[in-house]
Amino acid sequence: MKNKLIYEGKAKKIYSTDKDDIYLQEFKDDATAFNGLKKDRISHKGEINNFISSVIFSYLKENSIPVHFLEKISETEMLVSRVNIIKIEVVCRNIAAGSLVKKFGFEEGKELENPLIEFYYKSDELGDPLFSEDHILAMKLADKNDLDVVRKMTKYINTLLIKFFSEKGIKLVDFKLEFGKDKNGNILLADEISPDTCRLWDSVTNKKLDKDRFRFDLGEVEESYQEIKNRLS
Amino acid sequence: MKNKLIYEGKAKKIYSTDKDDIYLQEFKDDATAFNGLKKDRISHKGEINNFISSVIFSYLKENSIPVHFLEKISETEMLVSRVNIIKIEVVCRNIAAGSLVKKFGFEEGKELENPLIEFYYKSDELGDPLFSEDHILAMKLADKNDLDVVRKMTKYINTLLIKFFSEKGIKLVDFKLEFGKDKNGNILLADEISPDTCRLWDSVTNKKLDKDRFRFDLGEVEESYQEIKNRLS
Repeated sequence: MKNKLIYEGKAKKIYSTDKDDIYLQEFKDDATAFNGLKKDRISHKGEINNFISSVIFSYLKENSIPVHFLEKISETEMLVSRVNIIKIEVVCRNIAAGSLVKKFGFEEGKELENPLIEFYYKSDELGDPLFSEDHILAMKLADKNDLDVVRKMTKYINTLLIKFFSEKGIKLVDFKLEFGKDKNGNILLADEISPDTCRLWDSVTNKKLDKDRFRFDLGEVEESYQEIKNRLS
Repeated sequence: MKNKLIYEGKAKKIYSTDKDDIYLQEFKDDATAFNGLKKDRISHKGEINNFISSVIFSYLKENSIPVHFLEKISETEMLVSRVNIIKIEVVCRNIAAGSLVKKFGFEEGKELENPLIEFYYKSDELGDPLFSEDHILAMKLADKNDLDVVRKMTKYINTLLIKFFSEKGIKLVDFKLEFGKDKNGNILLADEISPDTCRLWDSVTNKKLDKDRFRFDLGEVEESYQEIKNRLS
């Protein structure tokens, strides 16, 4: 089933399969932060994130979001529709944290009046810099229509995920999405949704249950990923 | 005439005057680059930039752009309408250079198909980071209507300046604008337009005639500023 390695990212590998339209996405235990400057492994992260992403993608699919996810086929693997990834990381923020605090002086934990959408240029080499729709259009990474679709989908996904996590006692602080185009030009949600790509705080205690525990050496890294998995089980 | 010092920036001082609606803008010889990490003085820069800015603001005013500039009153001073500066630096680019090359991998000197407009958060403390309209709205630095006006004015100013410089044998590579609001809420072009805030290349030789000579120790700094002044005289 698993044929050629198509792409290896920081946390996942993508393989071709016997079917031309289907890729296999394998989740690794490797963890990186600060554009690869910090590297380590988080035990069982691969299987935890595969589980969490599968649950979330299934939920989004049930709610009419077009996703690349097809099915979970092993502890660390899922089948996905083959897409060409749009070289943009879309970040949606509900509560100020991370670079919003560090780069722009927001107060950490402050609820934003409206969800804030940011675009980053997906380029390991250039360190995934923040940019704007104007750059995206100038660089021809997507056209205006694609961007409007991506924005609309991101806002709807945000609404769905806030509800989803809130029912599990979790605040969705922010999250990163990637989108791809299938052979018919349809835009599908791709990549993963997991504690690697979201900031998730306990609704009552505000305890961080995401990759920030790894980034800032807060301890209980694996336990926090496991806690999210348990709440989603 | 010159009363209280209201604001001292890296290259200019702003004073109140006897008239409540009028400020005095004084150009300094101080030069800084890389968010203040590099500091020096460029002889006669104050008077050269005051001259160049006065000529350009007058030209833009004649072409119906609302500007804060009122009149040049001495070698290094001009009178301007009192405005509250909108905390955004608006950059307009026609040819790839500077951060577009360094941060986003554009080829230096490549002509852009359309002018590219960028917004930077005007904050010395935070190092003037690039951001987007979404951030500006979330941070309430301007509303959507203000941004639309600023974009429209910037594009028109770009068209006017390309023509203006081209007649003097100069390519307008990119430039930075700042806008302010007067007491009636009108948006006026403010700050300065000079080799400190533009990239200007000789049309034939592509010789850089702007602050990049200072940034990158290319020599002939004062001479290049003077060259722009001479071509505009």
